[in-house]
Amino acid sequence: MEQTTPIRSRAGGRAARHALRTAPNFEMLPGLRNTIPTCEIMTGSQVARIDAASMDILENIGVIFRDDIALADWRRAGAKVAGDRVYLDRGLVRELITSIPTTLTLHARDPRKSVALGGRDAIFVPMTGAPYLRDLDDVRRNPTLDDLAMFHKLSHMLPALHSSAHHIVEPYDHPISQRQLRITYSSMKHSDKTFMGMTTSPRNASDVIDMCRILFGPDFIDTHPVVTGNCNGNSPLVWDETMLGAMRAFCRANQPVLCSPFVLGGANTPASVAASVAQLNAEALSALAYTQVIRKGAPAIYGHYLSTVSMKSGAPMAGTPEISLMNFMIGQMARFYDVPWRTSNTLGGAKTLDAQAGYESATTLSAVMHAGANYIWHSAGWNEAGMHCSVA
Amino acid sequence: MEQTTPIRSRAGGRAARHALRTAPNFEMLPGLRNTIPTCEIMTGSQVARIDAASMDILENIGVIFRDDIALADWRRAGAKVAGDRVYLDRGLVRELITSIPTTLTLHARDPRKSVALGGRDAIFVPMTGAPYLRDLDDVRRNPTLDDLAMFHKLSHMLPALHSSAHHIVEPYDHPISQRQLRITYSSMKHSDKTFMGMTTSPRNASDVIDMCRILFGPDFIDTHPVVTGNCNGNSPLVWDETMLGAMRAFCRANQPVLCSPFVLGGANTPASVAASVAQLNAEALSALAYTQVIRKGAPAIYGHYLSTVSMKSGAPMAGTPEISLMNFMIGQMARFYDVPWRTSNTLGGAKTLDAQAGYESATTLSAVMHAGANYIWHSAGWNEAGMHCSVA
Repeated sequence: MEQTTPIRSRAGGRAARHALRTAPNFEMLPGLRNTIPTCEIMTGSQVARIDAASMDILENIGVIFRDDIALADWRRAGAKVAGDRVYLDRGLVRELITSIPTTLTLHARDPRKSVALGGRDAIFVPMTGAPYLRDLDDVRRNPTLDDLAMFHKLSHMLPALHSSAHHIVEPYDHPISQRQLRITYSSMKHSDKTFMGMTTSPRNASDVIDMCRILFGPDFIDTHPVVTGNCNGNSPLVWDETMLGAMRAFCRANQPVLCSPFVLGGANTPASVAASVAQLNAEALSALAYTQVIRKGAPAIYGHYLSTVSMKSGAPMAGTPEISLMNFMIGQMARFYDVPWRTSNTLGGAKTLDAQAGYESATTLSAVMHAGANYIWHSAGWNEAGMHCSVA
Repeated sequence: MEQTTPIRSRAGGRAARHALRTAPNFEMLPGLRNTIPTCEIMTGSQVARIDAASMDILENIGVIFRDDIALADWRRAGAKVAGDRVYLDRGLVRELITSIPTTLTLHARDPRKSVALGGRDAIFVPMTGAPYLRDLDDVRRNPTLDDLAMFHKLSHMLPALHSSAHHIVEPYDHPISQRQLRITYSSMKHSDKTFMGMTTSPRNASDVIDMCRILFGPDFIDTHPVVTGNCNGNSPLVWDETMLGAMRAFCRANQPVLCSPFVLGGANTPASVAASVAQLNAEALSALAYTQVIRKGAPAIYGHYLSTVSMKSGAPMAGTPEISLMNFMIGQMARFYDVPWRTSNTLGGAKTLDAQAGYESATTLSAVMHAGANYIWHSAGWNEAGMHCSVA
């Protein structure tokens, strides 16, 4: 029944309310405070066994640092170095990682969008690194800088994303020599949330830091995290010059590094879950420890990229039970060392936005929420095992 | 490189191995022993508060039993009855439910497919009750008895399903007066796993029991659960004559009843999660208690159908965070009373097998696994909020 009371006939009343209801709302949701009890799949003694196995790997097998500066740093820090192999005593590792902050705040260009990280505080970050995009007409194609700008704008607009990222898609229409500057500029221009910085070379990483100094002021960034840098390991047990140089650029500027072994479970790790986690944990610890050699007290995040591979075809899989199980275990390890933890969300291997994409994404999302992750990367767009970012 | 060693040239060697690899394998997987730690979202005192609120409802508001036999039974059992409203003292409820077996075995026609239920033992059961099916050509249509036979055969063949069901789809091509006999016969004929029985009327339920006596032998079924019957409450706080009559048929024959309030959260319950769970819990307890009035020691299962409704349109929703949260809470309540727990799996509201179907199903699946459910109904086929069963 139509209401005809005077209040309804007030000039602009209904139209104003309608406008308010239908206006786009780009307010960011608060950073996630995860109150779901963490899924403690391992007992305390099982956590201790993974820790002991990882420490055995670090002491007896060692980790390869393919980088002269890192090797010199490690020698000065008291590690045994033989060729490019560094043997890390468990006492040294434990001592080094104690200076990693257990929580941190990522400061955004809009200070109202700064977010806490660590403990039960978590954030959703969109995907990065897709060589293709799949558009609203379900056409898969090479992305451009305009496409990247669109994804940065979407990251700015989506309330549930607490961060933007860097090369969400790879903008092929600009020469590689300058491309990283355009990517960083796009991240800064089209979103006022916190974001991620290029680590594709030491120089690219330095450029990110220099641009952040311009944006935030040089004094500010030395004492405030404003941008994260992801450094992937070459599993098994290798860190290379590119990643280590980028890591130093971020650490020296006091910006948080995601120390992320790149694990294709069963391909570059043993086939079993426990042994894979022990290796991944050793790799993460070796990088976390190195961040503190570079700059004691610099923020750092226990990271990993984790997929399993088909034992028949070798193809990377997503949304598998083993990935969920390993997420539960790795979350326990990160909490054991009391450092913030990065994992990957909504990983799916589907070719398009179909039922497979839906259930693989939701399976991963559920697992990382129950696992208690803090820095929840790849939370939007990911499909086709990361080969494309989906606009839909 | 082609191997040419003698062992390869043995007659039939390669062909035999190929045949073995590619032969259909309809072996049922073992019953699920869920080793994921249950997600205890409530503290012990919060569980006690829900329990107290439910008992207050049972004592002070009461539950309507629209059935003369049940009212007479309750009077004899010592409950206060006013009209069709039964006021249940918490002491009486607690005493009655202690005789419900905490675990049971569902005996299948093939004894190797009998499955344990309760504690950490769980089973996957396909969906039931779809008025439509959606076929492999994505056409939605009324199902026939042949379609139902196909779904029973699929239940028989799928290794991860531990049970068949009854009217997975509604076979419209047979008159309603005899349809239930054809449904039960189809359940028995096309699968040798355990199954579910019709509870659409007291007579239909009795027919199921009579047919089970023929199939398993009358002495066997009086001491062995072979078929489950689902009885839905008319939430809020009503059990009707149809369901109570069916319940008696199953209980008297010592066959397990799923005592399932039918909750559309926010429509037939309060809008808030805790209050909805308190109501649902009161409803489940009243039926669980009544099973023991009918036959002390009869197996019974804490059940529920649970959906939320859109506060804008009133449409039932699926895969929502509130449903997952309530599943965690209800699982805790069922464990608090130490009775096996039935919930619903892979609920989705999508119109077809798309990304929405995938993520809503996977979200529900994940929640019920973390919630520690035992009888995991609607684990295959469900889509469109239960309006169709999907062949794909």
